[in-house]
Order: sequence, then C-alpha cells, then structure tokens
Amino acid sequence: MPRLWNDTIDAHRRAVRDATLDATAALVAEQGLTSVTMSRIAEKAGIGRATLYKYFPDVEAVLMAWHERQVATHLDHLTAVRDQGGSPAERLRAVLHAYAFMSRAKGNHSPGLSAVLHQGEHMARAHGHLRDFLRELLAEGVEAGELRDDVDPAELAGYCLHALGAATDLPSEDAVHRLVVVTLDGLRK
Amino acid sequence: MPRLWNDTIDAHRRAVRDATLDATAALVAEQGLTSVTMSRIAEKAGIGRATLYKYFPDVEAVLMAWHERQVATHLDHLTAVRDQGGSPAERLRAVLHAYAFMSRAKGNHSPGLSAVLHQGEHMARAHGHLRDFLRELLAEGVEAGELRDDVDPAELAGYCLHALGAATDLPSEDAVHRLVVVTLDGLRK
Repeated sequence: MPRLWNDTIDAHRRAVRDATLDATAALVAEQGLTSVTMSRIAEKAGIGRATLYKYFPDVEAVLMAWHERQVATHLDHLTAVRDQGGSPAERLRAVLHAYAFMSRAKGNHSPGLSAVLHQGEHMARAHGHLRDFLRELLAEGVEAGELRDDVDPAELAGYCLHALGAATDLPSEDAVHRLVVVTLDGLRK
Repeated sequence: MPRLWNDTIDAHRRAVRDATLDATAALVAEQGLTSVTMSRIAEKAGIGRATLYKYFPDVEAVLMAWHERQVATHLDHLTAVRDQGGSPAERLRAVLHAYAFMSRAKGNHSPGLSAVLHQGEHMARAHGHLRDFLRELLAEGVEAGELRDDVDPAELAGYCLHALGAATDLPSEDAVHRLVVVTLDGLRK
C-alpha cells in the first residue's frame, strides 16, 4: 500500500481512539464510573459498538488507555516546563510546581476511577515514567552541587512524587505553593 | 440485667468480631480478595452464617471494620512511640520512623484490597485521625521552636503522611531511614 494510504488509516485510527477516550472521560465525569458501558461509550463517541470492540475489549481497557493518554499529556507538559531554562534547581522548582498543581486537579477524579486505575501493573508503569523523568532532573541538580548528594536521586524522586501528592487535599493555591517549598527544603544540601 | 452479664455479652461480641476480622484477613492473604465470601468468612471464623450476618451486612463491611481495627492498632503503636519521651523533634522523628515502617509493611496488601478500602468516606476518616495525631505533635515542635513556623502544622502533617507513603516502594530499611531524614529536613526552620 502507498505510504499516503497508511498515513490516512493511521490518522483515522487515532481519531477514533481519541474520540472514544474523550467520550469515556465525559461519561465518567457526567454520570460516574459505574454507569459507563461499552454501548454508552460507542453512542457518545458516535461510532458503532462493533467498531468500538475492534479497538478495546472492555471498559477497563478504555479507562487504562484514557489514563495512559493523560499521563503522556502530563509528561509532555512537565517536559515543556523543564525546558524553559534556568539552573537545575530552578527547573526542578518549576517542574514540582507544575506537578503539584496537576495532582491537585486530579483530586477531582471519582474515587471509583482511581480504584480501577490503581489496580495491576498499569499505574506502576505510568508512575515509572514520571519517576525516571524526575530522577534525571534531580541527578542534574546533584551534579551541579545544588541538591543533597547523600540520597540516591531515584529515592528523592519517589519522595517528591509522594510528598506532592498531598496537593490533592489542599484547599488553596497558596497551600500548594507552601507544599512545594517544604518538599524542596527536603532536597537541599 | 446485672452489669456482669452485660460485660459478658460485650466480651462475647468483641470475641466474635475479632475472630471474624482475623479470619477475613487470613482469607485475603491466602486466596486473594475476590475469593472472599460471607460463607467462607463464617467457616474460617468458626461461626454460623446467620451469626455473621448479625454483625456485618456484607464482605465490604467486614473489610472496612478490619481496616478500622488496623488503623486503631497503628495509632495505638504511634501513641506509645510518641510517649517514650524526648523533645518534640525527637518524638516526631521516632513517630515518623514508626509510620514509615508501617507504610512499608502495608505495601504487601493486595492491590484489590486498597481499591475497596480507598473508596468512599471510610479512608478519609481513618486518615483524619492520623493527621490530627501528627498535627498535634508538629504543633508542639513549632511551639518549642524546633520546627518551621511558616506553614500550618495541619499542612505539614499532610506533607509528612504523603512523603512517608514513598516507603511502600522502598527496597531496604536503610532507604526507609533516608526517606525519614529527607522528610524531616523539609520540616526544619
């Protein structure tokens, strides 16, 4: 098949996939997790049920794919924040701020959704990407003499991700800023 | 009824309840969460199904009660650690160590169990008790001039609990000690 045709098919597949994930996210937000079925997803996405089943075997698979897309979007955003320049410590501060605000926004998930997503290997893999991203940034800061060097950057990355998870429960943006300051103070030499 | 008779009934009820929760924990550990049914719990606990249903309406209620008992046990332990004496900062260090090691042990839970337990109001209440406990200890440290006073102790308590949650994934006891050091450094003046 000519390349152009393959490109067209790929673009079509991506569009169906994206429409499905968008529809699912909307359904969960509107009606809660337990009301989501393959039929409703297909209807909301404007595709046939048979088509939907060619892409995903069940609702859980759709939710996992949706979450993977969310994580990828977040990583893209954090990468853009990191690449805005400054010393390693400045870039780390900017990234931790961005991550804390993401954690806070995520707090609006229905608890049932987290329950589904936290099962199995899926979340471990998603968190692994985030941790690797932070570990590299932390290692640069250690290298530059800006951060503590008595703890492995991989362990510091775990500390950061967990500590900033506290943002989920925080009532104000000021409180999120304070949480980032406290978390960063744990990383100082 | 005479008081002694009431005491006997209370003791009996507590014994049945404890036996039920122990049996359930054992079943989850042996066979996984999905295999747990009211019939199997009753059999393992050595009581009749009808009796079990007088105490708990369903498996989820048993799991919640089991988790509440776990949290109460943990809080008792943390209280004992706190009351071993020392300055507020020393007692805080001891409590955070104890909590980090608890978090690490908890990591052995089946993920399905966390999923059930994390749903609804239940976990929020359980965490509320822990947070209050830590907030008081942190407030003492701030009062004594040993800890940072620019962030509300309630926010610092949330930071501590989340940060120490990173212990779940840590491979060694040394790594847990390092996590506690890093977390405490975030609390310094």
